[in-house]
Amino acid sequence: MKKYTVGIDFGTLSGRTVLMDAESGEIVASSVCEYKHGVIDERLPSGKLLPLNTALQNAEDYIDVLRITIKDVMEKAGVRSDSIKGIGIDFTGCTMLPVDEDMRPLMFEPKFKDEYHAYVKLWKHNSCQSEGSRITDVAESRGEEWLTRYGGRTSSGWMFAKILQVLNEAPEVYRAAKKFVHSADWITYILTGEETHSAPFAGFKCLWSEEEGFPSKEFFQEVNPEMANVIEEKLPDRVVGAGKTVGYISKEAAALTGLCEGTPVATPALDAHASMPALGITETGTLMIILGTSSVQLVHSKEKINVRGICGYMKDAIFDGMYSYEASQACCGDHLDWFVKNCVPYEYKADAEKQGINIHKYLRSKAENLEVGESGLLALDWNNGNRSILADSSLTGAVFGLTLRSKPEEIYRALIEAAAFGAKRIVDAFEESGIKIDRVVASGGIAEKDSMTVGIYADVLDRPITVPDAPMSAAKGSAIYGAVAAGIYENAEIAANKLGIKSGKTYEPKAENVRVYGKLYREYCILHDYFGRGENDLLKKLRSIKD
Amino acid sequence: MKKYTVGIDFGTLSGRTVLMDAESGEIVASSVCEYKHGVIDERLPSGKLLPLNTALQNAEDYIDVLRITIKDVMEKAGVRSDSIKGIGIDFTGCTMLPVDEDMRPLMFEPKFKDEYHAYVKLWKHNSCQSEGSRITDVAESRGEEWLTRYGGRTSSGWMFAKILQVLNEAPEVYRAAKKFVHSADWITYILTGEETHSAPFAGFKCLWSEEEGFPSKEFFQEVNPEMANVIEEKLPDRVVGAGKTVGYISKEAAALTGLCEGTPVATPALDAHASMPALGITETGTLMIILGTSSVQLVHSKEKINVRGICGYMKDAIFDGMYSYEASQACCGDHLDWFVKNCVPYEYKADAEKQGINIHKYLRSKAENLEVGESGLLALDWNNGNRSILADSSLTGAVFGLTLRSKPEEIYRALIEAAAFGAKRIVDAFEESGIKIDRVVASGGIAEKDSMTVGIYADVLDRPITVPDAPMSAAKGSAIYGAVAAGIYENAEIAANKLGIKSGKTYEPKAENVRVYGKLYREYCILHDYFGRGENDLLKKLRSIKD
Repeated sequence: MKKYTVGIDFGTLSGRTVLMDAESGEIVASSVCEYKHGVIDERLPSGKLLPLNTALQNAEDYIDVLRITIKDVMEKAGVRSDSIKGIGIDFTGCTMLPVDEDMRPLMFEPKFKDEYHAYVKLWKHNSCQSEGSRITDVAESRGEEWLTRYGGRTSSGWMFAKILQVLNEAPEVYRAAKKFVHSADWITYILTGEETHSAPFAGFKCLWSEEEGFPSKEFFQEVNPEMANVIEEKLPDRVVGAGKTVGYISKEAAALTGLCEGTPVATPALDAHASMPALGITETGTLMIILGTSSVQLVHSKEKINVRGICGYMKDAIFDGMYSYEASQACCGDHLDWFVKNCVPYEYKADAEKQGINIHKYLRSKAENLEVGESGLLALDWNNGNRSILADSSLTGAVFGLTLRSKPEEIYRALIEAAAFGAKRIVDAFEESGIKIDRVVASGGIAEKDSMTVGIYADVLDRPITVPDAPMSAAKGSAIYGAVAAGIYENAEIAANKLGIKSGKTYEPKAENVRVYGKLYREYCILHDYFGRGENDLLKKLRSIKD
Repeated sequence: MKKYTVGIDFGTLSGRTVLMDAESGEIVASSVCEYKHGVIDERLPSGKLLPLNTALQNAEDYIDVLRITIKDVMEKAGVRSDSIKGIGIDFTGCTMLPVDEDMRPLMFEPKFKDEYHAYVKLWKHNSCQSEGSRITDVAESRGEEWLTRYGGRTSSGWMFAKILQVLNEAPEVYRAAKKFVHSADWITYILTGEETHSAPFAGFKCLWSEEEGFPSKEFFQEVNPEMANVIEEKLPDRVVGAGKTVGYISKEAAALTGLCEGTPVATPALDAHASMPALGITETGTLMIILGTSSVQLVHSKEKINVRGICGYMKDAIFDGMYSYEASQACCGDHLDWFVKNCVPYEYKADAEKQGINIHKYLRSKAENLEVGESGLLALDWNNGNRSILADSSLTGAVFGLTLRSKPEEIYRALIEAAAFGAKRIVDAFEESGIKIDRVVASGGIAEKDSMTVGIYADVLDRPITVPDAPMSAAKGSAIYGAVAAGIYENAEIAANKLGIKSGKTYEPKAENVRVYGKLYREYCILHDYFGRGENDLLKKLRSIKD
């Protein structure tokens, strides 16, 4: 009998589930379940208006994914549950929620129906900059060693900034919360009944490391006296390593999902990380870049190095014995979606409809005919803040070089180029710190669908970029972790080398474009430092006037 | 028998003609003639593609205005030509053309049908920045005294930059040109048969003054040896003062226009200047600001003062004995028109159509509900370069503070505010030099139609702004000059005090808005100097990469 595993990728708008042949790596079925409530950023279900920069989710939507998609892939493939030997999941991070002593989300309590702090906070919830800054400032002033692991800054998107915001703005929710957990770990609980804290989430989002544990009580005391005991009082006790078995499908979960009780469940992975095994990237020197609504960069090294401005690094986070370095960009496709909703004229939309193509494709069809530099435009890709290497969510975007002849497709392309320049700034930061990057593997929706954008990245980064033919790679990576949990492979590295897909289309940089982008990138870096490092605090001042 | 005069305002897209009762100032009829060829900026009539930033016109269109509108106003008002005692015209500047020895435009010669340099160059023709810079550089290096009259810089939009471009790019046109004349003076020739150079055009666009004449042969020799004798060889010989009679309607012109032969014709005025008598602004301390596609600022002083970065000053340019100081902005409504054509989404246009209002009005209806500073956006108003006080047409626009929630109406409003900040920068330059400005009178299409924008200007400038109820004020000013040419009034000041319309709606600044705009303006000034004065030459570099 063939052996299968299930992988589920919990994304921003949907959960994607694959059923993988655990020996060949073939995806035999897949299923997507859109979240019914999507991203909640304007009003709560109660009708209550939300503050700016709020991004929430409804935990029910995750349960729907478990309930619907696993049965769906089994049915599509005609595979019975007893052939499924393991399951892995990956999740966005830091997506977190407060729960009661029975791990029930506080958002379901009627008394909190108007209280958004009781909801799931999505990774991109972006209103705790002052809390993030507070945590960085206290760490800096105390000379906390662990800060160097995170490039010298903590992000306002991480767990403790989000918890501190709850404490500041809704202390009754803070007090009512028995625990604050990653949505990933909440799903583990739903599947296994185990209260755990998965190591990659603890490491990359909660300032934890195997060697040093969490920051000290004294540190949290100084951040806010009421948070002094946050680790003991508010986080799950048990940290479980990546690539391990975190528990087994419970009776209730078997009924919910259709899996057999006792099926091994792997430690959850961060969504971006799960693509590394799926693409078989087990070596050093290869940067994986995920091009989606936002962007994540990951690279391995055998050395422990501090890189200023990246999101963090962690040993054993993806493969045992390897340090994984992560950086990220808050905008990659998000600002293009904003652009097509807000800035594309009537005629373009009408023409795209006439041609029967979507508006992104229509704009690309015009933008790809532009020579590099032809538009005279340059943009900063900070419409959603900057995660690496400035780690400042209060920054905002800008467009330079506008004339009375500037065209929508020119601005659109400038926004894409800006994201590529942001990626190049990250690659430079890695290399300046001694982490060499020879080639790039791109994954994610934009990499799969948009050859113009990948070509621009290749020219800007001046490196060949391979796009593997591996749709739903995060979900597949989770299925690979599921196969390790099932004991089919000794460890994730061996499984990734066997099952990962390395073949794909490679985009070579074009010398002439590389030359012109080199000039534009120099200008981008000047703006990056001028507006991003305090010489001109315009973008923050505008935000403070606005607020 | 009542006495009437005619005033014609030659604008960018049309000629506007009024028939005025010369004693009461009442406009008894008006007529508009759109230019058939409009602004020629993409292709010549021959089909030949034009370079970027070219803006031409067809001189035929001006003749149509003379032929059609004068008869039209007479007919509409039931006024016979013998009651019309004088005519005045005003024109955009520097709008100029090369002509042969019979004052025939070279553009009509078949051999030049593909040669755009033979065409009328419109004031906003914007591709001679290097020629403008060359002229400023030579003047600076020679320590030319006259440069101080123009705020220390010459504009690439003025006569000699345009002539130098012809010499550089089409020397055969330069050599074939018997003269280069302002379109205004060409119209004078059509009406009177006189070859003249009207003083306000000579003063504000050709580096001339009553006391010092034109720049020296040695200066032009150094600019380009072939231009050494440009004054004697290529310009009309006779400069005629403002507010004077330049000639009389010829027999041919009588046939063309329907006016009586011998009717006095006034010296042409610059279009913006003509509004000063129409609005009765004969005093010092009142700034007139024209809010149209571009913007002009004019203020009188009894003193001769050098103001760095303004367009120029001139004695007797509008009223005898008074110095007129002029500054201008290359974008006021132009960038809003660009915005609605290129950046407004489908839904907005559909909704505006449903409501039966034009898209500008629709955007304003949303933008006027925004609090000052609420959008978090700030823009530079340089989509068409900067005329005052940087005098650099190679600058381009920028928008700062973009987020994933930025709305079209927010960007639209930021563009309006940017133009108001640009106006404030000019007012500050005047005041820093000792020309006090107590109140503001606004004129032009935007002032008449758009109370939100005038309100924003009042708040930004922190001064009351009056919008007189005086449509077609430039044409009326020309009719006033016509009345002086006719001998009905002793001089333009007396005529303006009698006929000018001072009553109108006044917008008072609101203290709270003034406070927040003060903060935003400080940020604008930092960007203005950083990007405009060489500290970061990004905007020019982008343009040079583009070219």
